[in-house]
Amino acid sequence: MISHVERPNSRFRDHLDPKVSDWIAPYHPDEPFDVAMLGVPLSKTSISHSAAFRLPDAIRGSFQSYGPYNMNHNLDLSEKLRVVDAGNVQMHLTDLALCHQRIEEAVASYWQVHDAPLILLGGDHSVTGAAVLGLTQATKGTYGVIHFDAHHDVRNLEDGGRSNGTPFRTLLSSGALLGKHVVQIGLRDYVNAKAYYEYVVEAGVTVVTARQVLHQGLEGVLDEAYRIASKDTDGVYVSFDMDVLDQCYVPGVPAPGPGGLTVFEALEALEWLGAKKNVQMMDIVCADPAQDFRDLTTRVAANVVLSFLTGVALRHAG
Amino acid sequence: MISHVERPNSRFRDHLDPKVSDWIAPYHPDEPFDVAMLGVPLSKTSISHSAAFRLPDAIRGSFQSYGPYNMNHNLDLSEKLRVVDAGNVQMHLTDLALCHQRIEEAVASYWQVHDAPLILLGGDHSVTGAAVLGLTQATKGTYGVIHFDAHHDVRNLEDGGRSNGTPFRTLLSSGALLGKHVVQIGLRDYVNAKAYYEYVVEAGVTVVTARQVLHQGLEGVLDEAYRIASKDTDGVYVSFDMDVLDQCYVPGVPAPGPGGLTVFEALEALEWLGAKKNVQMMDIVCADPAQDFRDLTTRVAANVVLSFLTGVALRHAG
Amino acid sequence: MISHVERPNSRFRDHLDPKVSDWIAPYHPDEPFDVAMLGVPLSKTSISHSAAFRLPDAIRGSFQSYGPYNMNHNLDLSEKLRVVDAGNVQMHLTDLALCHQRIEEAVASYWQVHDAPLILLGGDHSVTGAAVLGLTQATKGTYGVIHFDAHHDVRNLEDGGRSNGTPFRTLLSSGALLGKHVVQIGLRDYVNAKAYYEYVVEAGVTVVTARQVLHQGLEGVLDEAYRIASKDTDGVYVSFDMDVLDQCYVPGVPAPGPGGLTVFEALEALEWLGAKKNVQMMDIVCADPAQDFRDLTTRVAANVVLSFLTGVALRHAG
Amino acid sequence: MISHVERPNSRFRDHLDPKVSDWIAPYHPDEPFDVAMLGVPLSKTSISHSAAFRLPDAIRGSFQSYGPYNMNHNLDLSEKLRVVDAGNVQMHLTDLALCHQRIEEAVASYWQVHDAPLILLGGDHSVTGAAVLGLTQATKGTYGVIHFDAHHDVRNLEDGGRSNGTPFRTLLSSGALLGKHVVQIGLRDYVNAKAYYEYVVEAGVTVVTARQVLHQGLEGVLDEAYRIASKDTDGVYVSFDMDVLDQCYVPGVPAPGPGGLTVFEALEALEWLGAKKNVQMMDIVCADPAQDFRDLTTRVAANVVLSFLTGVALRHAG
Amino acid sequence: MISHVERPNSRFRDHLDPKVSDWIAPYHPDEPFDVAMLGVPLSKTSISHSAAFRLPDAIRGSFQSYGPYNMNHNLDLSEKLRVVDAGNVQMHLTDLALCHQRIEEAVASYWQVHDAPLILLGGDHSVTGAAVLGLTQATKGTYGVIHFDAHHDVRNLEDGGRSNGTPFRTLLSSGALLGKHVVQIGLRDYVNAKAYYEYVVEAGVTVVTARQVLHQGLEGVLDEAYRIASKDTDGVYVSFDMDVLDQCYVPGVPAPGPGGLTVFEALEALEWLGAKKNVQMMDIVCADPAQDFRDLTTRVAANVVLSFLTGVALRHAG
Amino acid sequence: MISHVERPNSRFRDHLDPKVSDWIAPYHPDEPFDVAMLGVPLSKTSISHSAAFRLPDAIRGSFQSYGPYNMNHNLDLSEKLRVVDAGNVQMHLTDLALCHQRIEEAVASYWQVHDAPLILLGGDHSVTGAAVLGLTQATKGTYGVIHFDAHHDVRNLEDGGRSNGTPFRTLLSSGALLGKHVVQIGLRDYVNAKAYYEYVVEAGVTVVTARQVLHQGLEGVLDEAYRIASKDTDGVYVSFDMDVLDQCYVPGVPAPGPGGLTVFEALEALEWLGAKKNVQMMDIVCADPAQDFRDLTTRVAANVVLSFLTGVALRHAG
Ligand SMILES: [Ca+2]
Ligand SMILES: [Ca+2]
Ligand SMILES: [Ca+2]
Ligand SMILES: [Ca+2]
Ligand SMILES: [Ca+2]
Ligand SMILES: [Ca+2]
Ligand SMILES: [Ca+2]
Ligand SMILES: [Ca+2]
Ligand SMILES: [Ca+2]
Ligand SMILES: [Ca+2]
Ligand SMILES: [Ca+2]
Ligand SMILES: [Ca+2]
Repeated sequence: MISHVERPNSRFRDHLDPKVSDWIAPYHPDEPFDVAMLGVPLSKTSISHSAAFRLPDAIRGSFQSYGPYNMNHNLDLSEKLRVVDAGNVQMHLTDLALCHQRIEEAVASYWQVHDAPLILLGGDHSVTGAAVLGLTQATKGTYGVIHFDAHHDVRNLEDGGRSNGTPFRTLLSSGALLGKHVVQIGLRDYVNAKAYYEYVVEAGVTVVTARQVLHQGLEGVLDEAYRIASKDTDGVYVSFDMDVLDQCYVPGVPAPGPGGLTVFEALEALEWLGAKKNVQMMDIVCADPAQDFRDLTTRVAANVVLSFLTGVALRHAG
Repeated sequence: MISHVERPNSRFRDHLDPKVSDWIAPYHPDEPFDVAMLGVPLSKTSISHSAAFRLPDAIRGSFQSYGPYNMNHNLDLSEKLRVVDAGNVQMHLTDLALCHQRIEEAVASYWQVHDAPLILLGGDHSVTGAAVLGLTQATKGTYGVIHFDAHHDVRNLEDGGRSNGTPFRTLLSSGALLGKHVVQIGLRDYVNAKAYYEYVVEAGVTVVTARQVLHQGLEGVLDEAYRIASKDTDGVYVSFDMDVLDQCYVPGVPAPGPGGLTVFEALEALEWLGAKKNVQMMDIVCADPAQDFRDLTTRVAANVVLSFLTGVALRHAG
Repeated sequence: MISHVERPNSRFRDHLDPKVSDWIAPYHPDEPFDVAMLGVPLSKTSISHSAAFRLPDAIRGSFQSYGPYNMNHNLDLSEKLRVVDAGNVQMHLTDLALCHQRIEEAVASYWQVHDAPLILLGGDHSVTGAAVLGLTQATKGTYGVIHFDAHHDVRNLEDGGRSNGTPFRTLLSSGALLGKHVVQIGLRDYVNAKAYYEYVVEAGVTVVTARQVLHQGLEGVLDEAYRIASKDTDGVYVSFDMDVLDQCYVPGVPAPGPGGLTVFEALEALEWLGAKKNVQMMDIVCADPAQDFRDLTTRVAANVVLSFLTGVALRHAG
Repeated sequence: MISHVERPNSRFRDHLDPKVSDWIAPYHPDEPFDVAMLGVPLSKTSISHSAAFRLPDAIRGSFQSYGPYNMNHNLDLSEKLRVVDAGNVQMHLTDLALCHQRIEEAVASYWQVHDAPLILLGGDHSVTGAAVLGLTQATKGTYGVIHFDAHHDVRNLEDGGRSNGTPFRTLLSSGALLGKHVVQIGLRDYVNAKAYYEYVVEAGVTVVTARQVLHQGLEGVLDEAYRIASKDTDGVYVSFDMDVLDQCYVPGVPAPGPGGLTVFEALEALEWLGAKKNVQMMDIVCADPAQDFRDLTTRVAANVVLSFLTGVALRHAG
Repeated sequence: MISHVERPNSRFRDHLDPKVSDWIAPYHPDEPFDVAMLGVPLSKTSISHSAAFRLPDAIRGSFQSYGPYNMNHNLDLSEKLRVVDAGNVQMHLTDLALCHQRIEEAVASYWQVHDAPLILLGGDHSVTGAAVLGLTQATKGTYGVIHFDAHHDVRNLEDGGRSNGTPFRTLLSSGALLGKHVVQIGLRDYVNAKAYYEYVVEAGVTVVTARQVLHQGLEGVLDEAYRIASKDTDGVYVSFDMDVLDQCYVPGVPAPGPGGLTVFEALEALEWLGAKKNVQMMDIVCADPAQDFRDLTTRVAANVVLSFLTGVALRHAG
Repeated sequence: MISHVERPNSRFRDHLDPKVSDWIAPYHPDEPFDVAMLGVPLSKTSISHSAAFRLPDAIRGSFQSYGPYNMNHNLDLSEKLRVVDAGNVQMHLTDLALCHQRIEEAVASYWQVHDAPLILLGGDHSVTGAAVLGLTQATKGTYGVIHFDAHHDVRNLEDGGRSNGTPFRTLLSSGALLGKHVVQIGLRDYVNAKAYYEYVVEAGVTVVTARQVLHQGLEGVLDEAYRIASKDTDGVYVSFDMDVLDQCYVPGVPAPGPGGLTVFEALEALEWLGAKKNVQMMDIVCADPAQDFRDLTTRVAANVVLSFLTGVALRHAG
């Protein structure tokens, strides 16, 4: 026996300081849980060069550094919630349509069996199109969407197929979503075509620009957004594109830009939404660990997910 | 004929999503326009090592990604404004005094023929000295200046000649500008010599520190600044040094520092000023694409220019 | 004699623009001064890989660019304060316990002779443990501490000895500090173990999270913190961990994270505290120049120190 | 008219120093030429994350810095060769099979009309599979291949479809190429599966490792390779994967590794092959400008292409 | 059951392409093996700031990309050798003397039970001092050392204790090694003090500079080195400091420099030595993944280890 | 007195390991010396953006890490040579012609008083033009030049004045140098205009390409070069442009490229030339610390200077 050895990839451990990675368990279909996470490592469907496919594992990596204790609520998440990690949807190397089909089927298969909130770790925003299709197909329900993004993501499908620029076009044009159930928050000037603004407005989507958030405060915006998205729906899907944040917080998104939301707004919004019982799915997309600086963007992503989990824990705690 | 080919340097195009680069046309002296842009790629005159000479072309490059639609005003700039790009003033490789002379002559030649607002894309701040000289020489007018900067830029001329540290010394000491028509906004502690603070105050310049902007709000500051700069003058020149912003927004300026304006303040200020009919020139200077991270600073610069253009469009729209 | 030569490492000098490095003088035990600085280049005691040992000399380097003039107070620090630099405590290459002992002895030796405020330039946070021990040992006094940090820094001492995660454990458990005299400001969710939150609360420490600062404003928090730390004590020690700031301001701290204080809050807080006559020591720790981008984090650190000096000057000016 | 202006993106010009970009002309089907270049910006088909799709335009960019004069042969390429640039094959955003089909059709359409040597600028190595199919389909000829690579590139097609790991599997298994006409040069240890070594050997491919090149010299290897590839064939295709070079020369290839060829070997080999009249196509693949340092890898790629052109010029000069 | 999922951190797999990480098994004391690897993640003992403690896990990470097939010998290492990974010696956070003691004990415990060759993955060079002490203490044997390094590593122990600059001082001065059994290969000008050159020469060490290797060829040098190190000894220890290579191959070593060995020389030397039956231990030290570019240095380190394993396999194959 | 303190910017010192920076003394006109160094921090005269002005101080910085002991010659340079550092020629911020004039005057003033070899630390290559003018003007002598460079540096003077592309045009066209006394070594294809090749050949300059060096060996080339440069001249000037080396060795030169000399060739060449008694000046130019990676290029520059000093020491030792 060799003395003093430990396993590879060990790091300093403080025995009083448990980590998120100690808490989140692998998914087993037969064991109960309160929230599930599923990675969707697809980003070849991105318009710009993106390694967002690395984000799910990057977030998991950062969960080795974060702990489950929320000081502001004096809440140990690990005491309130059983969270499971179902792994990643397996992508095909070259057949991107097959990738979308697998995501759709994976999400559908989840909702055929489970009813706990599901968090998707993207990937680029094209995964949302597939995910909502899987959700609606499995449940036959009607859903509202609260979509944080600098962009509408309703590009036409002729110019390049289903990409990270098209998820809401896919969903609105197919009838999988109705515009009146959709709220887009954080839109910006000069990065959206007028044609697409007009498209979403005609479809009945509610649009709130980042500048409106700055001047009105996010609190009222959220109240109204939740009211719209949960009215006459079977549930709410929250889709969080990391580029909704000002570029100073997320240097590693594929399309950074100035004039976005603050990181505190995002963290508090996701906590608030996580606490809403109608919210059944959340995704986080479009951060590229390969273009990041010191994992700053991944750190924000991990905090966004943890804030959402805190919200869900508050449902249980409440 | 070879099938399926397109020109080099093509990128993905969405046929419903026009870009700023599609909109802005090359300058032709005989064709009417509403706003002109002129690059001034000079930065060998900088005190610190700077590639700000690359900023004009970097901003143009980012105009291939930005579009002319302003959602907050539901305004398609391309429908309201004809904007032309006159190219760059040609610099000499080693004769820097000649560079300043050419800038002065280029600006003077513009105002001898045109009267539409002119945007200069610097370059370092020494270009402002030359530009204001060209303007006043061509028009024989009196001008007010609103100068966004962390620094006074009134260094003495003995220690190094006309550099990016001296434009307002050149202008105030020559009488090209009167201090009572000048407002400096965004000044910071520890990066300005007391002697220069005293110089500008004695010259009658109005000084507003970044910290004052934080506590008083930019709105009132701007109102007062415009009142001062337009009082008894023939027009207003807005000079925007990118380092007026907090370093978290502009990692690529040659002299970054904490305690500056926010990017939303800058965007809204330039839009507000663009809408003022007395504002005849604007420049943007002192961002160095070679020291940037993921073009974040260039992205801010492009948004500042677009915000100013939105303001000008609002003049026309109003 | 060779013509036109100047010394190595010269840079452009404007004869009207003195620098902080011109003002701060080397420490001589027999010459009077108002504030002393002492570098503590230790970071092998850090949990994560850190070159914070380079911070003292990095701050000094940036003092060649900053000047002593505070525009907001129209105050030339160099006219108000004599500041001396005592150099760095010499570290041992491999004996880290000896390093702590030397820091303790250096601080103790200082207070045995001097009574002017002392600024420590860390280094990692373990230096605070040694410094407070040196201070209390030399003066036999009772001290309050205002501790800016995202973290409690009260890890157990069994798992790794005296590291940057343990200074307040060392001090509270030894009785060198009493919890009722300690205020921690800026704590964050998910980066502190519940066990340590409970430990500090039981010890009587006052805890203010970063999110509380966001919603309550730092002004009131500071008033209360100073009241607590100065009540029944012989003086106040301010310890500033750079990671208390949001990661967008300090990309170069070893443990960056979202949801922190703003840089203006930090600068104004340190100025306010510097002006309090009971504040006798200040330290700044845990910024790593080797992981920084364009010295942005060092620039913040230098501004924090200068803000504190401005505060001290205001004592004298007041 | 504005004085002293020049067009955007101008750079310093020495009127006696013409550039490659001045020499290479756009392709027009009706104008004669000696060599054509065609960009193939596809790399979503890569196994590892790769922006090799940027290589064609990156090489073109570097042609603005290189000139057509070869000093070692005292040869002005621009006097000997008319070279045209046909642009890039247009890629589809999400349908990667369609991308391969377009490449195949583009190459086929070329050979249906022209008979001058054709240089493909990749892209990843999957483009070679499509290119050779296009060539053989258009000409109904039999071709030899000299393939510089650290890897066999004969992965099975079941695990991920036609990727940068499979071009020679596609070609050998379809009968488009016969192994006896193929020479692979530069193979390395530990990055090729035994199963694939055995596959190519059984197919009759000639294999020369990088280590054999080191000890035997490239000259003899090339002689033999050309003999094999031109024996009983209608022409020779040279495929150059940049990772055949030792990683010290090409830090920007997706799969760098030690123990490769030297850059002088590559430059001299391509010149030698370019001079062979049977060589009808050449491609260069698998360098990723996004992962490069100071364009070092792109610079090598550009020199490789210029060396090949020098070879072709020597055919004409000879 | 969720469809299409795979475990986190999966990557593309080709079922015909096994990887080194598939082959190397965890160490179990009771299962037979041919070679063992042991990580020694210590680098706080380095003179310059070094994260060489990350090298063991970095090499393991790269073993997920490399395969066990050596083409030059047509040898599948996985068929010839059972290699086990014993994990890492656990380091203490702040007690560096304890770290050395644990390394010594770990190595000693290994040799008390096993007699297969052992590969240490450092860490900095101080680990060699502890390792040789452990080896000699456990076996009571006499060992020769072949030491590849730009440096003598015989600094005095007074100035900083046992650091990466002192391992051979520790060993020679304690008598654990005799100079006549030691050969140092790759020494360079200007990075070794004359005093230390004289020390090793007086101790009887054989010194071969990098420049001598350039002019004499490594083959003869190795023959002589092995003859010296194996003469009158019970075994040979090969210590490989990555900085023996020219900096163009190893940008990530803490002390890079020009004028070193080539990477082919290193790979062939380690293979040759691995094949010698007297060689019982090998270590690889002083590469810092945190300062590397695109893992280039780690890639070399992994290839050096694989070359040594190929050598050992050749013992078995021979 | 504060205990345990040392001066700022101290680093670990081994008392047996003196450094080059301990050895080289400041220049005093009245104290004897064997070699002088003079920094020439000018690079605003460069065609491409260059911070080569930082090279003199960067080399000095690296002299804190290198020692004066040459192992290959068992020679302690500090025992053989008194070397002095005269500091830097002071540059003007904006008047570049004045900069050249000062360099010329500084060099002239040196040779009016001293006759020991002088090493210039550039700066860009334009400094050589000024330096040779200063030398010839002061001594009225005739000089030979051995010029290591990838480029001829004889651009016309009309297009941009005296830049880093023109020094030998300035010198040859003015008659300060005769072509028959000049040898250029290391020229490359595609980076020199045919017109300039013809210019130097017509002027009688001897040209040796890098590829000729590869095939002929540097030894013979050097013999011949020294013969030419010293024939009928009063001394030899060696000018070393760092870009003569292959880009793998010098990633930080402004114009890196493949196909250059090896670093061992450079080190041995400069040592060989340093040993020649006719060699009176040497310069090293065109490395940009701001574009380097881990100071690799500065390290090479420092070794080149030390190799030259070793050569000079061998004159004394011989
Ligand atoms: Ca989106
Ligand atoms: Ca978006
Ligand atoms: Ca300015
Ligand atoms: Ca400024
Ligand atoms: Ca702390
Ligand atoms: Ca902290
Ligand atoms: Ca390949
Ligand atoms: Ca390859
Ligand atoms: Ca060593
Ligand atoms: Ca070493
Ligand atoms: Ca040159
Ligand atoms: Ca050159």
